[in-house]
Amino acid sequence: LNSFGKKFIFTTFGESHGKALGCVVDGVPAGLKIDEAFIQSELDRRKPGQNEFATARKEGDSVEILSGVFEGISTGTPIAMVIFNTNQKSKDYGNIKDIFRPGHADFTYFYKYGIRDYRGGGRSSARETAARVAAGAVAKLMLKDLGIEVKSGVFAIDGIEAKNIDFEYAKSSAIYSIDKVVEDRQKEAILKAKNEHDSVGGVAFVKVKNAPIGLGEPIYNKLDARLADAMMSINAVKGVEIGEGSDSSSLKGSQNNDPINSQGFISNHSGGILGGISNGSDIDLKVYFKPTPSIFQSQQTVDIKNAEVEFSLKGRHDPCVAIRGSIVAESMTALVVADMLLLNLASNMDKIKKIYL
Amino acid sequence: LNSFGKKFIFTTFGESHGKALGCVVDGVPAGLKIDEAFIQSELDRRKPGQNEFATARKEGDSVEILSGVFEGISTGTPIAMVIFNTNQKSKDYGNIKDIFRPGHADFTYFYKYGIRDYRGGGRSSARETAARVAAGAVAKLMLKDLGIEVKSGVFAIDGIEAKNIDFEYAKSSAIYSIDKVVEDRQKEAILKAKNEHDSVGGVAFVKVKNAPIGLGEPIYNKLDARLADAMMSINAVKGVEIGEGSDSSSLKGSQNNDPINSQGFISNHSGGILGGISNGSDIDLKVYFKPTPSIFQSQQTVDIKNAEVEFSLKGRHDPCVAIRGSIVAESMTALVVADMLLLNLASNMDKIKKIYL
Amino acid sequence: LNSFGKKFIFTTFGESHGKALGCVVDGVPAGLKIDEAFIQSELDRRKPGQNEFATARKEGDSVEILSGVFEGISTGTPIAMVIFNTNQKSKDYGNIKDIFRPGHADFTYFYKYGIRDYRGGGRSSARETAARVAAGAVAKLMLKDLGIEVKSGVFAIDGIEAKNIDFEYAKSSAIYSIDKVVEDRQKEAILKAKNEHDSVGGVAFVKVKNAPIGLGEPIYNKLDARLADAMMSINAVKGVEIGEGSDSSSLKGSQNNDPINSQGFISNHSGGILGGISNGSDIDLKVYFKPTPSIFQSQQTVDIKNAEVEFSLKGRHDPCVAIRGSIVAESMTALVVADMLLLNLASNMDKIKKIYL
Amino acid sequence: LNSFGKKFIFTTFGESHGKALGCVVDGVPAGLKIDEAFIQSELDRRKPGQNEFATARKEGDSVEILSGVFEGISTGTPIAMVIFNTNQKSKDYGNIKDIFRPGHADFTYFYKYGIRDYRGGGRSSARETAARVAAGAVAKLMLKDLGIEVKSGVFAIDGIEAKNIDFEYAKSSAIYSIDKVVEDRQKEAILKAKNEHDSVGGVAFVKVKNAPIGLGEPIYNKLDARLADAMMSINAVKGVEIGEGSDSSSLKGSQNNDPINSQGFISNHSGGILGGISNGSDIDLKVYFKPTPSIFQSQQTVDIKNAEVEFSLKGRHDPCVAIRGSIVAESMTALVVADMLLLNLASNMDKIKKIYL
Repeated sequence: LNSFGKKFIFTTFGESHGKALGCVVDGVPAGLKIDEAFIQSELDRRKPGQNEFATARKEGDSVEILSGVFEGISTGTPIAMVIFNTNQKSKDYGNIKDIFRPGHADFTYFYKYGIRDYRGGGRSSARETAARVAAGAVAKLMLKDLGIEVKSGVFAIDGIEAKNIDFEYAKSSAIYSIDKVVEDRQKEAILKAKNEHDSVGGVAFVKVKNAPIGLGEPIYNKLDARLADAMMSINAVKGVEIGEGSDSSSLKGSQNNDPINSQGFISNHSGGILGGISNGSDIDLKVYFKPTPSIFQSQQTVDIKNAEVEFSLKGRHDPCVAIRGSIVAESMTALVVADMLLLNLASNMDKIKKIYL
Repeated sequence: LNSFGKKFIFTTFGESHGKALGCVVDGVPAGLKIDEAFIQSELDRRKPGQNEFATARKEGDSVEILSGVFEGISTGTPIAMVIFNTNQKSKDYGNIKDIFRPGHADFTYFYKYGIRDYRGGGRSSARETAARVAAGAVAKLMLKDLGIEVKSGVFAIDGIEAKNIDFEYAKSSAIYSIDKVVEDRQKEAILKAKNEHDSVGGVAFVKVKNAPIGLGEPIYNKLDARLADAMMSINAVKGVEIGEGSDSSSLKGSQNNDPINSQGFISNHSGGILGGISNGSDIDLKVYFKPTPSIFQSQQTVDIKNAEVEFSLKGRHDPCVAIRGSIVAESMTALVVADMLLLNLASNMDKIKKIYL
Repeated sequence: LNSFGKKFIFTTFGESHGKALGCVVDGVPAGLKIDEAFIQSELDRRKPGQNEFATARKEGDSVEILSGVFEGISTGTPIAMVIFNTNQKSKDYGNIKDIFRPGHADFTYFYKYGIRDYRGGGRSSARETAARVAAGAVAKLMLKDLGIEVKSGVFAIDGIEAKNIDFEYAKSSAIYSIDKVVEDRQKEAILKAKNEHDSVGGVAFVKVKNAPIGLGEPIYNKLDARLADAMMSINAVKGVEIGEGSDSSSLKGSQNNDPINSQGFISNHSGGILGGISNGSDIDLKVYFKPTPSIFQSQQTVDIKNAEVEFSLKGRHDPCVAIRGSIVAESMTALVVADMLLLNLASNMDKIKKIYL
Repeated sequence: LNSFGKKFIFTTFGESHGKALGCVVDGVPAGLKIDEAFIQSELDRRKPGQNEFATARKEGDSVEILSGVFEGISTGTPIAMVIFNTNQKSKDYGNIKDIFRPGHADFTYFYKYGIRDYRGGGRSSARETAARVAAGAVAKLMLKDLGIEVKSGVFAIDGIEAKNIDFEYAKSSAIYSIDKVVEDRQKEAILKAKNEHDSVGGVAFVKVKNAPIGLGEPIYNKLDARLADAMMSINAVKGVEIGEGSDSSSLKGSQNNDPINSQGFISNHSGGILGGISNGSDIDLKVYFKPTPSIFQSQQTVDIKNAEVEFSLKGRHDPCVAIRGSIVAESMTALVVADMLLLNLASNMDKIKKIYL
C-alpha cells in the first residue's frame, strides 16, 4: 500500500537500484502554478553526495514531470513525476545478497514476500524518500499560495540538543543544524562515528506557521495522528512528539494547559493541535531517528538459509540519516497539511453554501 | 472521518452526553466465536467510577451487539455494538457552554464546525474510547485464535517510571501500574495532584507477543506508522515511541542494531519492527499522555465572543487519563495488528495459491 | 466492506431478522438542520406491508438517531441511526435452513463465509436497504439546502413501459408508477404473477434536478461510475443506464451528441454527464430489477450437503421488488450526489482561496 | 481520484498529448512472473492505427516497467509502467482550443477545473485507457496463475447483434466481432458511418471463466457493483448489464431463477453473481458504448465565452469506440476480479488459520 492521504493523495514507486523512482500526486487542485525549478531545488536539499556528512553516493535526482501540468499550471489531473536512477552500483551489494543486515528490512521483506530486491535495500531504501520530497514540493506550492509555511531543521545529533531554534540558520548549515552554537559539536559527533565505522542518531524539528484553525478530521483522521503516521513512515524514525511531547507526561495540568486570551493562545505546549484539530498556533513536531543501521563494523547475523554469519558491510552510507531525514519530515508534514486543508473544506454548511450558492 | 483500518475496519459514533455511543466493526472474518462476556469485561477494565484514581462519573458501559453474530459466531457481516449513556449530568456543563476550556477541543471544534455539543466535550470526550475498546475486544478474540497476545500497563505517572515490567501485576493494580515497587509513589502523585485540583500525565506501555513475521504493508501502511497513528488518535496522547524510541536518537548504530542468530533477534531495540514490518520479536510501544486538561484551579480563557474570562471547572474528571488510556492503547494496538494480519494474507503468490488452488 | 462514499460516507449494519439494522453517516457537514420527521417519512415510503403489491411483512421501521445531532442541528460528527426489527417471524425460515433458494444469495454466502444467517436471507436481505434510505434522507436534507432535488418512479413492470414521465403522480401511486396511463396494466401484471405464485421484474427511473456543473471526480470516481456502483449494489438490480443508456449503442454520433447553445445543452442524450462530470442538465438513470427470486412455485435446488431437493418457498415476499427498489435507487442517488458535492469543493484553487483567504 | 481497487490497486496518470501516460499497480503479490512481452501484446490489441476501422493516429504504445519487478518476478512493491507519447499532433487541436465539442468532456472539465488541456481531450481522452490495459495485463497474469480466464468480444455494432458467441473468433477479427456471421454487416455499418463523417455505437461482451465461488464483498463492494463501476468508468460507456441484464426486468421469477443441481447451476441468467458474490458460473457482462462523439459533420456548440458557434471537427478518430473499448472492458474486468480475489482471502477464519497456523 503505497499511497498516502485522503484527498491530496500521493503514491510512490521505485527501488534504490531500479530503473527509476517517482510519484503520482493526485487531488492537486487545478489552477496552481507548478514551479519546476522549486521542485528540483527541494530535491537538491535532500540529495546525497553533497558533503562529508552524507553518503558518497552521488545522484543527480533530476525530476521530470510527466503529466498533470499544462502551460505551467496544474489541471486537476494527476501529476506524475519520475527520477531516473543514474549512479547505482549494484555490485556493491553482491556481498549482502544472501544475508540479512542487522537493523535493516532485509529480514522482514524476505520473509513477508519470499523474494527481495537486495540491491541497496530495494524498496526499503531511504532512496524512496526522494519521491516524497517531490510530492511534498507540490504540496508546499499549494501551501505557499495560502500563506502557510513549513520549516525544518536538525534539533539534535547523538544526544547533542539545540538550545536555540533558528530555521533560517538551518538552511545554510551543512547538517541543517537549527542551532549555530551546538552545530560544531554535532558535526564532530558525526565525523567521530564515521571514523569509527559507526553511525549516530538524531532529531528533526518541524514547524508549520500560519496554518488556519480547523485542520484535522477527528476522530480517525486527526491532524496529530496523521502527522504521527507520516513521520513514523519515514525510514529510521522511532519516535514522534507533538508540542511538549513526551515531556508533557511529567507535567501537571496547570503547567501544560495553554491559557487563552483574546489574541489567541498565550503558550503553546499543545504544539498547535487540540482534539486533533489545529488551533491557529504554530504546529510543532519532533521526529526521532535511530542511528543508520548501515555500519562498517563487523556484525553478527544469519543468511537466507538461517546459517550464522559474521560480516562487515561495504558500500556508501550516511553516517546520520536524521540530516537528510529532516527534509523528508518537512515534506511529509506539508503533504499532511495539504490533505487536511482540502478535507476541511467540507466541515460546515456555511462553507459549502459559499461555494455552491 | 470516523473509521480506522483498511480491511479490519471499525467506525465509531456517539458523544459523551448523547443517547448512546458505539461502533461498527467491519471485515471481521466469519467463523469467529464472539464471546460477549469477554467484550463486556474489556469495557469494564476501561469504565470510569471504579476508584479514587478515576473520575467519579459512573457508567455501566453495558454493551449490546446489534448485528453480525449468529448463534454466537461471526458471519462475516458488520458487527454493530451500542452502549447507551446512562449517567450523564449535562447540567454540570452549563457553566462551560459559552467558554473554551484550556487544553480542550472546545476551541477547535467551535471554529471548525461553527457549532459544538458542549456537554462533556461531546464527540471530543475520551468517552468515545469506550467504543474503541468494544471494537478492540473483537480484534483480540481474533488474535487469541491465532495465538497472539496484546498486553498493557502504566509505565510512568508524573515522571515516576517503572523499573520492572510486570504485565500480570498491572492487571490487578488499581492504576494498572506495571511495577509494584513504584506503584505507591505513582498513586501518591495522583492523589496529591487531585487534592491540589490539578492533574498528572503518564505513560502507557503496550506489548504484542507472538505476532508472526510479516505484518505491515510498506511504504504507507507500515506497522509502526499505523500504530503511531492509532496511538496519537487517543485523547491526550502527545508522543509515541517504538522499541528504543526517542532514546535511539542518542545511540550509535553499533549499539542500536539488533544482531541476529539462528534463533532470531538477540536484542530488541527495534521494538519488533524493521522496515515497517514485524520481525517476530515482541512489538513494544510507549505512549505518552499529557495531564488531564480538566483541572479545577482557576484558569484564563475566552468565551465564544472572544471576551476574556477567568473560570474554574466543575464536574467529574480523571486526575490522570493515562490509566484508563492504557486500556485504550492496548485496544487500538489489537485493532492495528488485526488489520495487518488480514492485509498480509495477500503478500505473495504462495499464500494465495494455498487458498485457491 | 459495508461503507460507501469517499467524503460523505455511510456504513450500514444489520440483518433481516437480527436485533436491529442501521447506519452511521459520516462526513455530514455541521450546521445542517436534521429533520427527523422527514427521515421517518422517507423510511415510510420504502416500508413493507402497505398494500397488496408488497410483502405482507409489516415493519414499523421506526428510526432513532443516536448521535451527531445537537439541538436539531448536525455537529459534523457521525450520525448513527438505528431501526429495531419488530416483526420477524424467524420460524417462517425453518424450512430453508439447509437449502439454497434459487436466485438468492444463500449459496454464495454459505460458500464464501462457511456460515450463514438463513433467517430471511440475513444480511443479503433487501431489508438492509432501509438503512440506505435513512442515510439517503440525510443526504437529501443537504441537497435540499443547496436547491438540488432527486426524484424517482417506476418506469416499467413486467415489460410494460411508461410513455409519460410524471414524478408527481408517482408519489401517490400505490406502485410508484410514473405513468398514470399504464399504471393499471402494470398493477394487473403484478397481481397476475402473485396469483400464479410467481413474480415480475421492473425498471426504476431516477432524476436529479439542479445539480451544479462539476460533480464527479474522473477518472476513477466519475459521477456515472459511482452511480452505476450504487445502483448495482441494490438487491436484484441487473442493469444500469445513464441517459440514453444502452439505446445509444444503436445510434449515430450525429444523433446522440447533444448540441450546445448559450442557454446550455439543447438535448440530453448524455443524461447530464460528460466525461464523468455533471454538465448542468438533468441527471437521468434507469435501473433494471430482476423479478423477485422468492416465488412460491416448486423449484429445483440442493441443500448444504449438495443433495438435490425439490421445494416450495413459504413466507412473505414482494411480488415485484422494483417498486420499493425505486425508493432505494433514489436514496442511493442522493448519497452519491452528496458525496460528489463535497469532493468537488477542492477542484480548483479559486474555490480554496475563497474559503481560506 | 485516479486510483481503483481496494487491495489490488492501480493508479493511472497522463494526458492524450502530454509527455507520457502510465500506471502504478500496487498490491500485486510477490512471486508472480511478470511477462513483459505479454503486457506489450495486450497493449498492442488496444493500440490505435491498425486498420480502417480505427483512428489513423498511430501510437507505438511501447510500455516500460520502471519498478516492482526483480529478475522477472514481482517483489510485492508497486509496479510502475510508462508509455511515452510519440505521435501527438497537437496542432490538430488548435481549432478546438476555445470551443466545447458536443458529446465530449471539454465543457465539464472547463467548468469544473477552470482550465483544460484541450489537446486531444487531455486527460479525458480514451488514450488514458492504454494505462488500464497495462495494469489489466498484470492482473491477467495473476488470474492465469490461478486458472482464471477473462475474454471479450464485440457483441453488437450499430444495433447489429451477434447470434453466436465465439471468443476465439473475436481474437482475429479486425473489429473483434464475436460472431463471424454478422461481422461483415457490422463492418459495413462502421464504414458507412465513417464515409458519412459520422460514427456508430456498439456493445462489448466480457466473460470470466473459472472464477472461484466467493468473490465479492457485500454490501458495498459487491462483485457486480464493482464491475458496473469499472465499466461505466470507461470512456463512452452508457450502460452495463450483468447476466440477463435489463431483459430480466421483463421476465417472471420462475423464468429468471437459475435452478441448482449437484453439478451446480443449471442455467446462468444471473451472470454468475448472486448477492454480489460469484457463484462459480461464468461471469457475464455487457457494456454499451455510445457512438464516438468525435464526428466530422457540422455541429452547433458554444465557445468558452459562451458565444454560439457552428464548427466541424478535424483530426483522427475512431468511428466506433466499442471495438478497442472491448479490450479495455476486458482489462477492467480482470482488475476487478484480481482485487476481489485478494479481498476474499480474509472471508473466514478457516482460511486465515490455514495461512498463519
